[in-house]
Amino acid sequence: MTVSVFDHPYLSGLLGDEEIGAQFTAEGDIAAMLAFEAALARAEAGCGLVPPEAAARILDVCATFRPDVASLRKATGTDGVVIPDLVRQLRDAIGGDAAKSLHLGATSQDVIDTSLMLRLKKICFILGARLYAITRSLDGLDAQFGKSPLMGHTRMQAAIPITVSNRLTAWKSPLVEYGERLMQQRFPLQFGGAAGTLDKLYDKAAMVRAALAADLGLTDQPQWQSQRLPIVDIANLFSLITGSLGKFGQDIALLAQGGTEIKLRGGGGSSAMAHKQNPVAAETLMALARFNATQIAGIHQSIVHEQERSGAAWTLEWMLLPPMAMAAGTSLKLAQQLAENIVSLGGS
Amino acid sequence: MTVSVFDHPYLSGLLGDEEIGAQFTAEGDIAAMLAFEAALARAEAGCGLVPPEAAARILDVCATFRPDVASLRKATGTDGVVIPDLVRQLRDAIGGDAAKSLHLGATSQDVIDTSLMLRLKKICFILGARLYAITRSLDGLDAQFGKSPLMGHTRMQAAIPITVSNRLTAWKSPLVEYGERLMQQRFPLQFGGAAGTLDKLYDKAAMVRAALAADLGLTDQPQWQSQRLPIVDIANLFSLITGSLGKFGQDIALLAQGGTEIKLRGGGGSSAMAHKQNPVAAETLMALARFNATQIAGIHQSIVHEQERSGAAWTLEWMLLPPMAMAAGTSLKLAQQLAENIVSLGGS
Amino acid sequence: MTVSVFDHPYLSGLLGDEEIGAQFTAEGDIAAMLAFEAALARAEAGCGLVPPEAAARILDVCATFRPDVASLRKATGTDGVVIPDLVRQLRDAIGGDAAKSLHLGATSQDVIDTSLMLRLKKICFILGARLYAITRSLDGLDAQFGKSPLMGHTRMQAAIPITVSNRLTAWKSPLVEYGERLMQQRFPLQFGGAAGTLDKLYDKAAMVRAALAADLGLTDQPQWQSQRLPIVDIANLFSLITGSLGKFGQDIALLAQGGTEIKLRGGGGSSAMAHKQNPVAAETLMALARFNATQIAGIHQSIVHEQERSGAAWTLEWMLLPPMAMAAGTSLKLAQQLAENIVSLGGS
Amino acid sequence: MTVSVFDHPYLSGLLGDEEIGAQFTAEGDIAAMLAFEAALARAEAGCGLVPPEAAARILDVCATFRPDVASLRKATGTDGVVIPDLVRQLRDAIGGDAAKSLHLGATSQDVIDTSLMLRLKKICFILGARLYAITRSLDGLDAQFGKSPLMGHTRMQAAIPITVSNRLTAWKSPLVEYGERLMQQRFPLQFGGAAGTLDKLYDKAAMVRAALAADLGLTDQPQWQSQRLPIVDIANLFSLITGSLGKFGQDIALLAQGGTEIKLRGGGGSSAMAHKQNPVAAETLMALARFNATQIAGIHQSIVHEQERSGAAWTLEWMLLPPMAMAAGTSLKLAQQLAENIVSLGGS
Repeated sequence: MTVSVFDHPYLSGLLGDEEIGAQFTAEGDIAAMLAFEAALARAEAGCGLVPPEAAARILDVCATFRPDVASLRKATGTDGVVIPDLVRQLRDAIGGDAAKSLHLGATSQDVIDTSLMLRLKKICFILGARLYAITRSLDGLDAQFGKSPLMGHTRMQAAIPITVSNRLTAWKSPLVEYGERLMQQRFPLQFGGAAGTLDKLYDKAAMVRAALAADLGLTDQPQWQSQRLPIVDIANLFSLITGSLGKFGQDIALLAQGGTEIKLRGGGGSSAMAHKQNPVAAETLMALARFNATQIAGIHQSIVHEQERSGAAWTLEWMLLPPMAMAAGTSLKLAQQLAENIVSLGGS
Repeated sequence: MTVSVFDHPYLSGLLGDEEIGAQFTAEGDIAAMLAFEAALARAEAGCGLVPPEAAARILDVCATFRPDVASLRKATGTDGVVIPDLVRQLRDAIGGDAAKSLHLGATSQDVIDTSLMLRLKKICFILGARLYAITRSLDGLDAQFGKSPLMGHTRMQAAIPITVSNRLTAWKSPLVEYGERLMQQRFPLQFGGAAGTLDKLYDKAAMVRAALAADLGLTDQPQWQSQRLPIVDIANLFSLITGSLGKFGQDIALLAQGGTEIKLRGGGGSSAMAHKQNPVAAETLMALARFNATQIAGIHQSIVHEQERSGAAWTLEWMLLPPMAMAAGTSLKLAQQLAENIVSLGGS
Repeated sequence: MTVSVFDHPYLSGLLGDEEIGAQFTAEGDIAAMLAFEAALARAEAGCGLVPPEAAARILDVCATFRPDVASLRKATGTDGVVIPDLVRQLRDAIGGDAAKSLHLGATSQDVIDTSLMLRLKKICFILGARLYAITRSLDGLDAQFGKSPLMGHTRMQAAIPITVSNRLTAWKSPLVEYGERLMQQRFPLQFGGAAGTLDKLYDKAAMVRAALAADLGLTDQPQWQSQRLPIVDIANLFSLITGSLGKFGQDIALLAQGGTEIKLRGGGGSSAMAHKQNPVAAETLMALARFNATQIAGIHQSIVHEQERSGAAWTLEWMLLPPMAMAAGTSLKLAQQLAENIVSLGGS
Repeated sequence: MTVSVFDHPYLSGLLGDEEIGAQFTAEGDIAAMLAFEAALARAEAGCGLVPPEAAARILDVCATFRPDVASLRKATGTDGVVIPDLVRQLRDAIGGDAAKSLHLGATSQDVIDTSLMLRLKKICFILGARLYAITRSLDGLDAQFGKSPLMGHTRMQAAIPITVSNRLTAWKSPLVEYGERLMQQRFPLQFGGAAGTLDKLYDKAAMVRAALAADLGLTDQPQWQSQRLPIVDIANLFSLITGSLGKFGQDIALLAQGGTEIKLRGGGGSSAMAHKQNPVAAETLMALARFNATQIAGIHQSIVHEQERSGAAWTLEWMLLPPMAMAAGTSLKLAQQLAENIVSLGGS
């Protein structure tokens, strides 16, 4: 099935992003969840909570385990989360006493949120690299056309002439800022156990958590299971990126409508009008901006996360965040194309 | 790739809906688009705009055509819409003079919006049947428990006793209303040609449009290519359904937390606490309600549809509407399960 | 204080609407609430639940009562609703045994929701009249310029020529439809008592409710205190109106940027550029459309209305609905101005 | 008129906030706009662009000027912004050659955005102080009840016992983080002139801008007239605050419904049920959270700010941001009350 434009058989030609999308496959999620379970066993063995040979067995199995996805699917329908069945399958594969050492003191949310953070970290690196590439392309346009005059427009009316460089700065500055924010973004481990207190790890809780975070390359901080700021921060960045690129797209579309100050190549064809050269990428940037601006509201709704863990607010995040990440990725990809398709900019 | 919970390999166990999802596959869309092209040829032949033998050839090809999806994907990336390449592929398959008769006077939006309406009509029928089934289940609960007392709650505090029947009525009434609205919902043909004027059909435009609508089982009305009310109306119904079922879910979850006035079976398990019976379906209904309530904003943003056709506003709809339909379908499926899992309701 | 642009000392010059705003004053609300209490006493006297002389006394007091607003304000801070203190003040003014007959069997929500419906009904009449006036203005433009050519634009690019009449039809058709929907909109009485069961009226409940609805000119239907469809429907109409006028505004702004196909008078001045004639009304229509498209999401969130009455979901409506009504009113006012400021439209 | 709950004659008893509201009065805005004009004259005199005696005259007039608000209101209706008429009135008051030195090189947006930043800075200081006060109150509860057991709830079901301290930490930690972010938030001067290039200040532009920023206590940075990140960042903080307090409110309401683990004083009364003690503040926190979560979508929509200045996107901000600030302020006020009304927390 293909409900989502982001992985639709043909709409993905416009809206897809394989690099970001790879982080939201079942395989990507399972790999990250197994990495969590393996690192947990290692950390708990290091703290003496789990026998070294049990940890070794767990690591061995996690390294190659391929779950029965049909079973995961069925169980998720009942449990609301994939972990109880995944842990059950893993314990069957591990066997013996070592099976009891798996997932010790952890809960579903620990595995799922941490898997998400591992993948969001990768995604943010990819987005950062793309932001940098676009600023380079805009710099290239500046070198070529920066000194050319461009009619400044305020309130959708011609105002006074500015330079192409002025406009390029307005497009570029926010992207530079977002790149810096991506670099400063923290990706915290989630580890709290059943109700957030790591009750089964006694006085070893802090030590296990620190080791686990270090092993996974995530920030060590107290559990945030009902405090969703890390999710909101990252979603906010996604929407800032698409928003500023939406402005870029809208400006390009307005220039292209006006007709004389921009030349673009690579426009889209029409099934009814052979002469059209539609600024498809520019329009799509506008759509992606409004898409993420819509979704961010749901992310903020999910801050109202009742008690120690809200199935409702949490499930809502699962529906909203991956498409927002995809929109950010696609937006950067299209903006790069669009920048490269600018043949000339500004007057003479 | 699986960005969307609605068709994710295991999250779909909770959030998927195969019956609704089938309408959003590439196959489902292509079949509906081919139905449009075939019906158009038939209508235009009936009005003497297209030779009968050309129409016959077009019908033959459309009946069995399977497009090269990789080519569609690539072209969509450039054109922003799938139609120019689909028409090109179809014309190649049709061959000869008949190929020129394909898609005569139509434009991309005609095919895409009409394909959507054909599928939304099916979806609304499915939703209507499910609404009816739930009202039957609620009636069943009423017959069993309706006269039992239930503590009424206002402002999240015990107020005065009501009956189970009172509460069931509050759950059921909106669903009955939505069922009636679904039955009254019109599903209009979109047919306007390049800029909405059906300029290539001259004085036959109205006749072709009427024949086309009749053939496809859609309402005949002037093109609505930049007037998106049919989309907003249907999206609004989707969100009303999920909203009222979200209230149902929240009420059930609050009852289940209180503990004595409801007995549920089929609760979800926990990876950390063997004793838990989580009201997963109830929580998921809350999440789906908040999801659609989020998306509806984007649908209203897309009413600002510039000029004769907005690539931006239109693409935004593609991102928002299918997940909203899925949420409505899943919500009804889960509500049905939940209603059937109510073992007892009300006090003694 | 003036948090809202809609009643701000100077921003209201652009965004205010005195006719709609009058329905959201304290005076407007209090008058409607007193009308409810008076009609309730009359209905209950008619059914023998209240002595005729008590009803007469209540009617007398309600006809001229002016509450102590400072006291209402203080009490609302504690009770979350104005009614307990308003009823207390009214009972003090009525005095004697008659005081006990006031508000018999009713609850805060009955008064507040019904007051809102009385005022929404007036608002919808005003909006309906304005919609009609705009369609008349658009008809006038059609008579003047309808046959002139206009360059059709799709995907923000020149497509093929259409006529001014084609464009006017795209602007006008949705407005005609909204006018019809406003006329069909029901404005239901809310009357349910403490927990929706009218428990204190025994077998007279249906009779009182019918009489009360008839007296107030509202639709008689069972209480909808936790089923917020009437609110959603009206909010949806507000946002449809602003949305379609936002398209109108955006189309005008795009025409004005292009420059040759439209002449407008009455543009706005700039503090920096004396030559500017900004299409302020057109831009403001776009802002109002996006404003209501934002708010509608919150209205849908408030469908998740827990149990017999949700203070949270209900209070949320109070924040959202009046600004949405104002936006619809202002939008129609500005669209009328804008239509009248079109000096010429289309090419030659 | 009183469209907004935040300054409504009686609803403000629940939802108002005089301290924050004072920043959104006409007086507050005008004072900040006059401060801008005065500081600009001073900075330009310092750089030799304006005669010292002209600057002195401007400062004198700005110190005491009271504009004709009716005139401002009327002009805003035409110009879309208040500045052209305010500058005109000021120039009349200044008289002579000095009048020409007023507003030199500035544009409407410079004055309006800078006035907003001056006031947002004050608001953020107020919010910061309130955040600190709440964390102190939560610390007080921790000292009193921290070691008491509390039933942890996950997925709206009893899970395992935690301590009151665990729950208080989940409430408090985000608030501490928001306090830190408020302290780090930059409040930038907006100064760009007609189209963002400060074209009329020639080589003195950077010097004037730096002096102006220093004088006003704002951050000196290039104009951000079409790059709305400072607005989004602050709005985001507002919504984070209301979101986390919404979780606090919801948790309290759920505790109060359960009944045994919390004792609250100061609950709200009912007009129908004398025995009720409604957790009004808790519910209102939930409403305010969902309100701001709704509004933030519009703020992100306004990032799509076309060209050098978008009247549409900018006007949209004016509608959204002040209510968001009010919601944040009110939310903190109510949360403080609620924390102080907790008589006991946790089991025995």
